Order: sequence, then C-alpha cells, then structure tokens
Amino acid sequence: MNQTLKTGSDGRLLIGGLAASDIAGQYGTPVYIVDEDAITAACGAFTTALAKHYPGNARAAFASKALCFTYIYRVVQKCGFAADVASSGEAYTALRAGMNPEDLIFHGNNKTLSDLEYALENKIGRIVVDNFTELSTLDALCERLGKTANIALRLNPAVNAQTHEFVRVGGIDSKFGFAIGTGDALAAVRTALASKRLKLGGIHCHIGSQIMDSEPFEFAAQIMVTFMKRVLDETGYLLKELNLGGGFGVRYTDKDAPRGIEDAVRTAAETVVKTATELDFPLPLLMLEPGRSIVAEAGITVYTVGSVKEIPGVRTYVAVDGGMGDNPRYALYGAKYDAVLADNPHAPRTRAVTVAGRNCEADTLIKDIALPELKPGDLLCVLTTGAFNYSMASNYNRVPRPPVVMVKGGETFVAVRRETFEDLTRCDL
Amino acid sequence: MNQTLKTGSDGRLLIGGLAASDIAGQYGTPVYIVDEDAITAACGAFTTALAKHYPGNARAAFASKALCFTYIYRVVQKCGFAADVASSGEAYTALRAGMNPEDLIFHGNNKTLSDLEYALENKIGRIVVDNFTELSTLDALCERLGKTANIALRLNPAVNAQTHEFVRVGGIDSKFGFAIGTGDALAAVRTALASKRLKLGGIHCHIGSQIMDSEPFEFAAQIMVTFMKRVLDETGYLLKELNLGGGFGVRYTDKDAPRGIEDAVRTAAETVVKTATELDFPLPLLMLEPGRSIVAEAGITVYTVGSVKEIPGVRTYVAVDGGMGDNPRYALYGAKYDAVLADNPHAPRTRAVTVAGRNCEADTLIKDIALPELKPGDLLCVLTTGAFNYSMASNYNRVPRPPVVMVKGGETFVAVRRETFEDLTRCDL
Repeated sequence: MNQTLKTGSDGRLLIGGLAASDIAGQYGTPVYIVDEDAITAACGAFTTALAKHYPGNARAAFASKALCFTYIYRVVQKCGFAADVASSGEAYTALRAGMNPEDLIFHGNNKTLSDLEYALENKIGRIVVDNFTELSTLDALCERLGKTANIALRLNPAVNAQTHEFVRVGGIDSKFGFAIGTGDALAAVRTALASKRLKLGGIHCHIGSQIMDSEPFEFAAQIMVTFMKRVLDETGYLLKELNLGGGFGVRYTDKDAPRGIEDAVRTAAETVVKTATELDFPLPLLMLEPGRSIVAEAGITVYTVGSVKEIPGVRTYVAVDGGMGDNPRYALYGAKYDAVLADNPHAPRTRAVTVAGRNCEADTLIKDIALPELKPGDLLCVLTTGAFNYSMASNYNRVPRPPVVMVKGGETFVAVRRETFEDLTRCDL
Repeated sequence: MNQTLKTGSDGRLLIGGLAASDIAGQYGTPVYIVDEDAITAACGAFTTALAKHYPGNARAAFASKALCFTYIYRVVQKCGFAADVASSGEAYTALRAGMNPEDLIFHGNNKTLSDLEYALENKIGRIVVDNFTELSTLDALCERLGKTANIALRLNPAVNAQTHEFVRVGGIDSKFGFAIGTGDALAAVRTALASKRLKLGGIHCHIGSQIMDSEPFEFAAQIMVTFMKRVLDETGYLLKELNLGGGFGVRYTDKDAPRGIEDAVRTAAETVVKTATELDFPLPLLMLEPGRSIVAEAGITVYTVGSVKEIPGVRTYVAVDGGMGDNPRYALYGAKYDAVLADNPHAPRTRAVTVAGRNCEADTLIKDIALPELKPGDLLCVLTTGAFNYSMASNYNRVPRPPVVMVKGGETFVAVRRETFEDLTRCDL
C-alpha cells in the first residue's frame, strides 16, 4: 500500500489524517481526494534535495499537466515552485491562480499561433521552443507585436528510458525537440542567436515518464551539459539555464520501486556538476520539472461498488461507479493500480477480480487484482490517482467529472466541484 | 477515401456539399464537421432495411454514446429512431432535445442509484437491467417510489466477434449481462417475473463493435430467439421484444470492408425469422441499436498543420493543432484513420509520416500513413471521426474541446460551440 496512506485506530483508511469513507460520505462518489500536505512534502523534498546536492542555482517547476486546476497552482506556488504549462489553457489557469507569469514555462511540440500570442501578451517567463517552424513563427510574431520572447530550446538527447511506448518521448524517434545527434540542435541555437527578438536562455529536455532507473538521467545530464559547452565553443554564447524536465517514477503498486526524490535529484545534480567541472563549464541554473512525482501518491479515488458478477471458471467483475471517464490510464497504457477497501484496507485479499468501470464498453480500471470479498455499496479506494486522472478525465457517456476534494490540516474543501448535467450541456446549442 | 465525401469542381474536399476548408476558415481549427444529411441517410437505410427484410414490427435506436449532444437527438428523432442512453447524463441530454422518454432505452453495466431514480422519475421507456444487483436495487427503488419499471434484460450470448479486446464485449468473459450459458439468464427472467413492479418486455444483447462479418449476428440472433422460446416453454411467459444491439462496422480506412447497412440488417432479420419459424415462436418486435454506423462516416475533423519534423532515417512527424484530447482512439485502441488535404484530397501520397497531436506526450493520431507533402498552415482532414471522437474528448492539457459544426442542405450551423478558457475553469473553486 502507498506509503502516504495510513490507517486509523478504527482500522479505516486515512488520507491526510481523515477517513476516506467519511470524505466519500460527505461529497459522494466517485470522488478524487488529494492530500495537500503530501504535495507540499513532495515539493519540499525536491527543493531540499536540489539545495543539498547542487551547489549552483536551482529551481523546480511543477509539470501541471499531471494535475491541473486553479487551486493546485496556489499550492505549488506557496512551495516556491515555478510551473510548466502545456497550453494557453493551463497558462490561463495558472495566472487565474495568481501565479507570476515570470514563473511559467510554456511547453508543447505544436503550440498554436494563439498559444504563442497568449504567451507573449501575458509575459510568460519562458517559451520552450520545440522546432524550426515555431522558431520562425515566434520570431515573426514578436516582430508584429513589437515584443521580445524569452526562450529555451527543447532538445532531444536520444535517451531511451525503459517505459511505455506512449510515454517514452526522449528517444530519437520522438515528435519533441531538436535532435542533438542530427545537428538540428546546434542549428536551432544559431537561428535563435541570429534573431534580435528571441532571447535564448537555455536548453530543455524530457526523457520520458515513470522512470525508475538513474542511468537515463545521468546520460541526459551529461549530454546536455556537453552540448552547452559545445555551444560556447562554437558560438561564444553562454547558455545559462539547463532544464532536465521530469519523468521521476512513483509507486502505483508494490511492484514499482522508485528511487525516491532525493536519490533521483542527487543523480541529476551530481552528473551536471561532474560534467561541468570536467569541461570547465560554469554551473548553469538547474531546473527540474516533476509532475507525477509531486501529486500521484497524494491522491486517491473513492468509488462505490455496484454489481459483483461472477462468471464461474472465467472471471469475477466488480463494477464501480466511475471508470475510464475519470481514469483512462488502464485503457490508454495498460497502467496498473492498487485498490483497498476504505473501511478495511488491510482485509485479506482472498479473491482475484477485475475492477470494471461503468462506461459503456469493456472499460477496465484494474485487471486481475486480488481483493477482499466485495459487496454492493462497499467503498473502494484506488490508490495513486493524483496524477493524470483528473487532468485526463472525459465526459464519455456524458458522465459528470468527479470533484477534487483537498485535505489539508485535518480539514476538507472542494478545489474542483462535481460537474452537473447543466455543465454537460453548456456548450450544446 | 470515405464514400460520403466528394470533391468540388475546384478540387477541394466537400462535406455535405461545402468545402471543408471554407468551414474551417469560418469556425477555426480544430473543428468537428458533421454532415446531417449523411446521418439522415444512414438512419433511413436502417429503417428501410428493417421494413424490407423483417415482416414483424421493428425499430432502430441510435446508440448515442457514439456522438452525444442535444442536437443529434433531434436529428435521429426526426428519422423515427429511438435512442439508447448509457447514463442519466445522456438521458438528460435526450430529454433536453425534446425526445419522448418512452423512446429512450437506458443501458449500463453499473447504473448508479441516481441513474435509476432518474430513469423512473422521468419515465424512461425501457431500463435494460444488467445484473442481479440491479434487479433487486430497481425492485426496491420501485417499491419506495411507488412506481413500476419497464425493463429488458441484457443477456450475454457468448459470441466472440473478431474485434479489439477493449471493444469485444459479447464473449463469456464480459462485464455485461446475464450469461445464457451459465443459467443466469433464465434465473434473471424468473426473478423479474416474480416482481410485481418490474414489467419484463424483452431481452437485449450487444456482441461487440466494428464487426465486419455476418456470422456473429446470425449466431446471436439464433441464440436469443431460442432463449425466448425456452422462456416461453419453461415459464409460460411470452417475451415480445428482441433487441440485438449494434456493432455494425464502418470504413475508417480502405482496408475496412463493412458489408453495408442493408446486408447487415438482412442477416439479423432473416435469422430471427428463420429461427422463430423453426421454433414456432411469434415474431418479436425487433430492435437494433446502431451508433457508429449512423455517425462515423458522417464526420470529419479538420486540423491545421503546425510543424513538420523530419528525423532522417527514422520518421517524419507532422504535428496538428488537436490530438488525443479530441480523438483518443489511436491512444486507446490503436485505431487507424485516413486523412486528406482539405484543398487537394487526391494529391499524390508521396511521403510516409506520422500525424502527431499537440498534447504533451507521445500523442499519435495516425501512425505511419502515406500523405502528400505537407507544410505549416495546411488544413488536414481526418476522416470518419463522427463516432467516439467528440463523445470521448477530454480537456487534457486544458485544451478546449473543438466545436461540432453541422452541415445540412448547404448550410452550416454550430451544434456544440467551442469551449472557452472560462469553461475550462468553470468548476475550479
């Protein structure tokens, strides 16, 4: 079971010190519950580890695609984090939360013209330019608007981390970034430097998601610093910022063994220091962009069990009142989750079942999991749902998206309210 | 290329007689465009085929999970269709459109208590009960509310149609329905008959999705009629309605060869007639529930090309301004689509590319497709997106969902408006 979850004296599952079943009783199911203190602790772990292991300037940014709504930006902002946004919709939400636009890093392989206009008009701190089309589009846009843009370049260091095809984006076969190996990256630097309107601050990479090993980060850090040195040598220009992105793994089930935040940060930091020292290159501002590792384990989803259908000799289906609409990650990636009974999380797991959702297709949430005997009305908590559940939710079958209930200091409050039928038809003319 | 699409005298792609690029110019991209006349024609094909090939009473219902918004119910209602709804949110939308509640068929493997209350309060025509838990819950609810419920039973005939795991739901290993083979189906009939509040009208099955062959439908029809006869023999009760669900295949790419609506309906109808005649069983009301086959080929999505990124010797990525947020079907199922240039749909396909979306992960729309040379600003039309695109869309990366623009009689109008940033944060507290 997830380490951030505890059990109360009455044996019930606690999140942020409160019984999950009490929260579900108050707010209904399905409900996302997010422990703000766990998020604050994870942010603190990154900040502390960077301070401890990196002698230069360093800063972490929250990759908000993992969990995006207004309040979450307030939480990470209080922790001193910047935020990475992947669209003008995310940027809008961050600004609505009161974030300083200087603290936003705008990502995306295919930002639209309106995204770029939005970023310039709102003085977003850093636009991470992905490709040559964007370089020229942004340059022309700056000229038209009479503005300059602070940019970084998304590079592809071609590191193949061991993860799912759909979330492995740092290999050479990626839609993202300027490949170092092909010469595109250096050409992009020269293009940026030739522009009066583009202010090139640094380089960025992101080597994948849910990475458990240290080698990919070491390799990426080494390649990126080496590239910065090469830019200095060949152009005379000193890149001052190195953003190594995110991808730090979390524990979805007992089979996942992430190295922990400090260990992961130490690897990256030490490699940057070592490589820079070897190359006699000044230590850059080091940025990291954790998303999943900040919020995944801070969240659970509580469902109510509906039918339990035993097909003798085949399979037992336990149906819950949510599904791929609120958590599409099994359907998308075959992602694995653990689940426990809200009122008896340590009950013996006596039965192999498949947890099915309510959506009108196969809609599996957890395939082949050992769980206790379940009956209609039981509250089932799926663990580690803080990342890429709410943010990827849909209204498939016109099911309203669940609320996000925060727990902080022993109190609960709604950060995102449950959708209503009126919300569902709001855009229907 | 999809048969419902034509090319104008100037060589541009037409949908409903209008140039796709003109519509995109007026409404922006990405945009879903749906040809209402094509939907009306598909509905008419079902109605005509049922009248021609089935001598008993028959009716088709639109499986609205395929494409759900207020206006679409008005279209199918005008065609004389009933509608299948998979949640109270879909039912709400149908009623908002002015559909007669008698014409709604309420499906779902795990309807919540509030779904069932909604169905009873709103006098939904038929609740298709999926499992024993629902039978007892509904019975108790009827008693509490002093109401009766018109029900059908979802049965599992255990037919394995040749289709993707995630959409193959008619096999014995399914979360849906009472299995005939295990005796559950007959036990469910007896339970329903023993209730004073549940009025059992008929039985339902749905054997899968995107089925190209005739055998699965023949097999299911035969099994279901044989079961109806068995119910009559063993209980003396005459089931009067047989709903064979949907699953009729459509053409996404040239490799798909669906049999056509008339042929598919004929198979089902003739099998019912043949089996009923052999068993001396009176012809039931025959219902079919097409969804995809009504709307898929009536819809296209127009995107604007952003970057074109060639990685020598590896792959060329063409990025568009939408992605898995508006069409998650490649990410979910590895579904294949065709695409054409809006302004030159017959341009020679000279280059192998992968069409990538804008969402901040691998986000593929079409992997490995031959397309003409593309440049930033080109309008690319993905074909056959009328089903399970808008209805499955998310706000991942807080990207607003595109509008649905209808084309009818040479005119366009907005059926679902584009979301705004205010919509995205509407539930954020």
